[in-house]
Amino acid sequence: MKKQLMEMLESRKDEIIQIRRHLHENPEVSFKEEKTAQYIADFYQGKDAEIETNVGNGYGIIVTIKGGKPGKTIGLRADFDAVPVDEETNLPFKSKNKGVMHACGHDGHTAYLMVLADCLIQLKASLPGTIKIIHQPAEETPPGGSKGMLESGLLDNLDAIFGIHLFPTDPAGVVGWRSGYAMAGRTYFKLIIQGVGGHGSSPHLANDAIVAGSYFVTAIQSIISRRLNPFDVGVITIGSFDGKGSFNVIKDSVELEGDVRYMTTETQQLIEKEIHRIVDGIETEFGVKCQLTYTADYPPLYNNPELTAQVKASLESTNDPDIKQVIEFPMFSGSEDFSYYAQKIPAAFFYIGCKPKGVEKAYFNHNPKFEIDEDALLVAAKSVAQVVCSYFQIND
Amino acid sequence: MKKQLMEMLESRKDEIIQIRRHLHENPEVSFKEEKTAQYIADFYQGKDAEIETNVGNGYGIIVTIKGGKPGKTIGLRADFDAVPVDEETNLPFKSKNKGVMHACGHDGHTAYLMVLADCLIQLKASLPGTIKIIHQPAEETPPGGSKGMLESGLLDNLDAIFGIHLFPTDPAGVVGWRSGYAMAGRTYFKLIIQGVGGHGSSPHLANDAIVAGSYFVTAIQSIISRRLNPFDVGVITIGSFDGKGSFNVIKDSVELEGDVRYMTTETQQLIEKEIHRIVDGIETEFGVKCQLTYTADYPPLYNNPELTAQVKASLESTNDPDIKQVIEFPMFSGSEDFSYYAQKIPAAFFYIGCKPKGVEKAYFNHNPKFEIDEDALLVAAKSVAQVVCSYFQIND
Amino acid sequence: MKKQLMEMLESRKDEIIQIRRHLHENPEVSFKEEKTAQYIADFYQGKDAEIETNVGNGYGIIVTIKGGKPGKTIGLRADFDAVPVDEETNLPFKSKNKGVMHACGHDGHTAYLMVLADCLIQLKASLPGTIKIIHQPAEETPPGGSKGMLESGLLDNLDAIFGIHLFPTDPAGVVGWRSGYAMAGRTYFKLIIQGVGGHGSSPHLANDAIVAGSYFVTAIQSIISRRLNPFDVGVITIGSFDGKGSFNVIKDSVELEGDVRYMTTETQQLIEKEIHRIVDGIETEFGVKCQLTYTADYPPLYNNPELTAQVKASLESTNDPDIKQVIEFPMFSGSEDFSYYAQKIPAAFFYIGCKPKGVEKAYFNHNPKFEIDEDALLVAAKSVAQVVCSYFQIND
Amino acid sequence: MKKQLMEMLESRKDEIIQIRRHLHENPEVSFKEEKTAQYIADFYQGKDAEIETNVGNGYGIIVTIKGGKPGKTIGLRADFDAVPVDEETNLPFKSKNKGVMHACGHDGHTAYLMVLADCLIQLKASLPGTIKIIHQPAEETPPGGSKGMLESGLLDNLDAIFGIHLFPTDPAGVVGWRSGYAMAGRTYFKLIIQGVGGHGSSPHLANDAIVAGSYFVTAIQSIISRRLNPFDVGVITIGSFDGKGSFNVIKDSVELEGDVRYMTTETQQLIEKEIHRIVDGIETEFGVKCQLTYTADYPPLYNNPELTAQVKASLESTNDPDIKQVIEFPMFSGSEDFSYYAQKIPAAFFYIGCKPKGVEKAYFNHNPKFEIDEDALLVAAKSVAQVVCSYFQIND
Repeated sequence: MKKQLMEMLESRKDEIIQIRRHLHENPEVSFKEEKTAQYIADFYQGKDAEIETNVGNGYGIIVTIKGGKPGKTIGLRADFDAVPVDEETNLPFKSKNKGVMHACGHDGHTAYLMVLADCLIQLKASLPGTIKIIHQPAEETPPGGSKGMLESGLLDNLDAIFGIHLFPTDPAGVVGWRSGYAMAGRTYFKLIIQGVGGHGSSPHLANDAIVAGSYFVTAIQSIISRRLNPFDVGVITIGSFDGKGSFNVIKDSVELEGDVRYMTTETQQLIEKEIHRIVDGIETEFGVKCQLTYTADYPPLYNNPELTAQVKASLESTNDPDIKQVIEFPMFSGSEDFSYYAQKIPAAFFYIGCKPKGVEKAYFNHNPKFEIDEDALLVAAKSVAQVVCSYFQIND
Repeated sequence: MKKQLMEMLESRKDEIIQIRRHLHENPEVSFKEEKTAQYIADFYQGKDAEIETNVGNGYGIIVTIKGGKPGKTIGLRADFDAVPVDEETNLPFKSKNKGVMHACGHDGHTAYLMVLADCLIQLKASLPGTIKIIHQPAEETPPGGSKGMLESGLLDNLDAIFGIHLFPTDPAGVVGWRSGYAMAGRTYFKLIIQGVGGHGSSPHLANDAIVAGSYFVTAIQSIISRRLNPFDVGVITIGSFDGKGSFNVIKDSVELEGDVRYMTTETQQLIEKEIHRIVDGIETEFGVKCQLTYTADYPPLYNNPELTAQVKASLESTNDPDIKQVIEFPMFSGSEDFSYYAQKIPAAFFYIGCKPKGVEKAYFNHNPKFEIDEDALLVAAKSVAQVVCSYFQIND
Repeated sequence: MKKQLMEMLESRKDEIIQIRRHLHENPEVSFKEEKTAQYIADFYQGKDAEIETNVGNGYGIIVTIKGGKPGKTIGLRADFDAVPVDEETNLPFKSKNKGVMHACGHDGHTAYLMVLADCLIQLKASLPGTIKIIHQPAEETPPGGSKGMLESGLLDNLDAIFGIHLFPTDPAGVVGWRSGYAMAGRTYFKLIIQGVGGHGSSPHLANDAIVAGSYFVTAIQSIISRRLNPFDVGVITIGSFDGKGSFNVIKDSVELEGDVRYMTTETQQLIEKEIHRIVDGIETEFGVKCQLTYTADYPPLYNNPELTAQVKASLESTNDPDIKQVIEFPMFSGSEDFSYYAQKIPAAFFYIGCKPKGVEKAYFNHNPKFEIDEDALLVAAKSVAQVVCSYFQIND
Repeated sequence: MKKQLMEMLESRKDEIIQIRRHLHENPEVSFKEEKTAQYIADFYQGKDAEIETNVGNGYGIIVTIKGGKPGKTIGLRADFDAVPVDEETNLPFKSKNKGVMHACGHDGHTAYLMVLADCLIQLKASLPGTIKIIHQPAEETPPGGSKGMLESGLLDNLDAIFGIHLFPTDPAGVVGWRSGYAMAGRTYFKLIIQGVGGHGSSPHLANDAIVAGSYFVTAIQSIISRRLNPFDVGVITIGSFDGKGSFNVIKDSVELEGDVRYMTTETQQLIEKEIHRIVDGIETEFGVKCQLTYTADYPPLYNNPELTAQVKASLESTNDPDIKQVIEFPMFSGSEDFSYYAQKIPAAFFYIGCKPKGVEKAYFNHNPKFEIDEDALLVAAKSVAQVVCSYFQIND
């Protein structure tokens, strides 16, 4: 079955590219992907598999491919939302929707998976288990689409889940893996510091919220510098300090908004505890009232070490000429809501190089000039096919 | 002449009140007092004195009363602008101009001085010297009207200048004096801190302007706490910290606006030097670019001690039943552009109690409910008359 | 009686100087003034007055002079301790006790009062009331000697108390007064911040007390800059930050010692509350344990306004050629345990100029080169005599 | 030759242990290892190799083993100094020198290398190259002994250098490797901040060094939190803040001492630049004079990736039953002056597990109760022998 699958994928390379271009031309932002979802659902129309639409808190689609033989159940996930970026490429299939662009490669993720799914449907008689194809919306915008997919209950009994991401750090042919913590978790927080306003000449009759806010900003620097294990990774950014007022009026309140990044759940918890501690301290120290809204967005992405070792071994063992190099990727400070699946299900998320040919340094994901080498799409399809076959011990 | 002057003033008490009510009903904000100036100019029409209009950088008026005998030249100053406050009193002569109100008593200052000037014109044959009546606009808004009046050259040879202010801290009948520094000077400053923006996950590729701004705010606290003589008076308020941005984007620049108050020129200079020093230090320390706009508004008001002693003695020596009590006033954190005159001319600025009868604690100047006891207007007229007579050694 | 008293004092000017020189040559530090007290007690031996020794918590002496007529009871206080300073003058009567010096003028205070007391004893038949001569030890060292004198109960029924201090800011002949708050109160505090030690490479396993202490120091600057009325006076100095350790070991604990100055009881209370607040805040913010010992030493010295007005009027009314000028003194940041008397008894503390002749700027009190113009001693004696006579309405 | 070498080592296991025990019993601290060096030199007496003593800035010894065939030249390094720790074990061969202990395993390093060297000397006819045995003193104390060894010129032409360290994190039989940056570099710095002393009541006449020092401490937190790539490793510890003084005297100067750790040369340079920048900023900001002594001690240890890959492959390929497991070690925050060799010569430093049997968590190096499983010594000898043979392509 494996040989057949690979040949089918090779023969449908152009179709993958056409699907990807269609998606690229018609991008939709998170939670608004109505037409994209319809396009995907139409693709599966009449095919021999169960299809569920409107799954989760958005336009999620799950296609269940029940194999001809009993066995384990795995999920293959691709996200299909675009980002609010105004495309600046000269591609003939450039976005038709102003201000929206598939600048993160999700068009490619979805295209390869649709064709791979179709092939698997055709070969399902030989499949010793079940594969759930997860077309997930809204990866880009917290709370994200994956939570809803999980809460649907349709993924309750998965034995493993796999996903990939296109990155233009490496050329097509390179596949990357990373065991354990691989992508950052992140948290949004808002802190309103309420003091007492007053006239600039009479500080003793007021309680200056700008002063309290500034001491807060200096104090939180010590979390990263003194609380964190120097070998761990954490960032706290106050991206907004809204204390605009009149120059001679003591500010009654300020609003700070911040972003926290971390690579492990332990660091997430440590920083959360320390920010709360400092907020409490500032409240006492300056006699202000603080209102802290602290919301973890996506957790750090944890790749199951055993599963990742299998993925690595499987990819390294193939002689497929399209899969040229298998490398370890460094940790990455971006976030990914695939991490929610990985909290519940043994998961492996890996990377597909897609750097355009002839380019030394490619525009990175989310850049308005982001482009991919479309050869990478077949690499993605074959790599996932290879991993799936290995998982089900399908050797030829 | 003095006895006659006092009797004339007493007989025109109602006229003073009527003028004040007219002005109160028709307030105009700083630098826009066109009709007010016209009204004042009309009053002097046909009177035996030189009148100059449109003096300085606004609608200033100077009326020169040349006495029948040679002698010194003094100035008597009253301001006539109103403030952008929406009146909330129930007075029958409440402001007709929405959003503008004579909430600082300048209507009263002008009213008493017009009538006093008229009396002095009538009695000028006996006057051993010259009196310049200074009707000044735009006291409320920096750069103020007094600088322009001085720059006109018309006040170049004054031997002394006097002014008063109505304050509702004390009832009508109380006159206050203070020798030396009496009212605060103030400075406006704006600091733009330019760092480098970037993504919240990569602080090392950016230069966080919010962090630099916050350290600046904590550092300037040390100016007041450690640089200032504890027996001196100084305040630095950052009234605005404009660092609004996106929570996960490192802020590239912030804009701070501040207000500085001080009671002496030495303190003014000390704080200016120290703020510059800290700005320079922050620039080096955080590798940011700082742009500091530092503009002293009004200097501290310095009452000439000899002249103030004369005022005090003169007021204490009178038996006038309207001048009931002469007290020393505390220093006051408000500012007054009379201070510019006082930098060039021996000056005495004193205070006229105007607390409405039957009120325990009156609404203070600039409050939308500010009211005065109109009896205070005659007190003002008589007090200044008394001081003028003393100055020219007119004893009866 | 007054005229007689003044003549007696004049005739004993040299004796005052001799006594002062004896004391100067034999200084003793606070709470150790055994021989000084003996010398004073010996002086009163055989004189017609009650003498109590070893009063209070040291070598205090109270001499009660009961007048021949009934009347009020007042206290006259002079302190007699020296300071731990190594004298650097070339005076023939230079200190014989190495490291101890009458560098604060208490030798002069005591000398004039002894002779004045003796004169009053001799004239007591004419005295309409009672005078308690208070020879107080240990003014220089908290908790001070005055508290003990008060706790003895021997001063329970005083109607007024007077004291003076020699200051070389003005020449002999100048007497200074100040109504209301006149000299600073002060507080000593000690803050032990207990964190957790550890190796320099592992901050996350420790809790850095130096970092917590440093944030504390920056935070307390905001008390003076933002909590205090700018027209009030307050100083907080951290004079000691003991965080000495090994460069590569995270410090487990630091010990800070500080000094607080203020001119009113309200400021004292405000700063105490704010320091406690910031300590509590730091404890929470940095997860350290703080131990704060906060001990008010001497309260601000408050001169009773009515009594001070009497002193001023009395001194101004005299035609005595030795009392050349009566001036208002500025507030003074030094402290004085006379303030304890002033908390319980209507009090007036005033100043006697003692600047050496021919000197432009004299060495100030506590300087090893401090010297006085001994003519000031008769001025002190006569001024106090004048005040006493006024108080008892003895006019000639 | 390899097989023979391994058998020789096995047969001399007890001798290695005896040598180690002798060294353990007679420890000497860095730069004072006179008797240790003599003991080592005596061992080589009469053996067929060149021996140089007193190499470098201490008691360094280099033994050159010239092989019978031409080839490359490598170095094998072991350090032989002890640490100033008072031993608290109950070993029969416990330190005889109070306050000095081989608590870092250098006794074991030296013992295995002496015996291995002797074996190599005996087998040198078959050796296709040259081996320099480097017995290095003073690893524990900056500037360290390795710099001197390098400066001797005797190691100028090495093609590779190898070293090991005993660590009780793993049991005997485990050998660890790490490619690239493996151990931390570190820097000592001292900052003297010179302000101006003064009386606690008069901050404006002084310049408070404690305040400037505290703002410095808060400011440097931002280096780690905002300047460093979050995926890099850096620590700045102020281990000493010496600002002890009198509570009511404004401190004129403070002395801070600090420790910096980093895993790459780039981080070392970044932090050095930033600390200098902040010091310059503080100087301007607070008007103090700063004197910064900034001394990099040991650089980060960089294991040559190719050489480390060879070491790893070589160790993994052996079937020796004593070498049970070859693992990747994490980065380690400790420092090692082997890093100086690695700056000049392709180097591989690897780790030998030595956790005592039956112990769950062993006392770490430098602990007064540190002990090793002496079986680890043969593992060390065999591992290095294996690596040497691989390097020279000696397969049997």
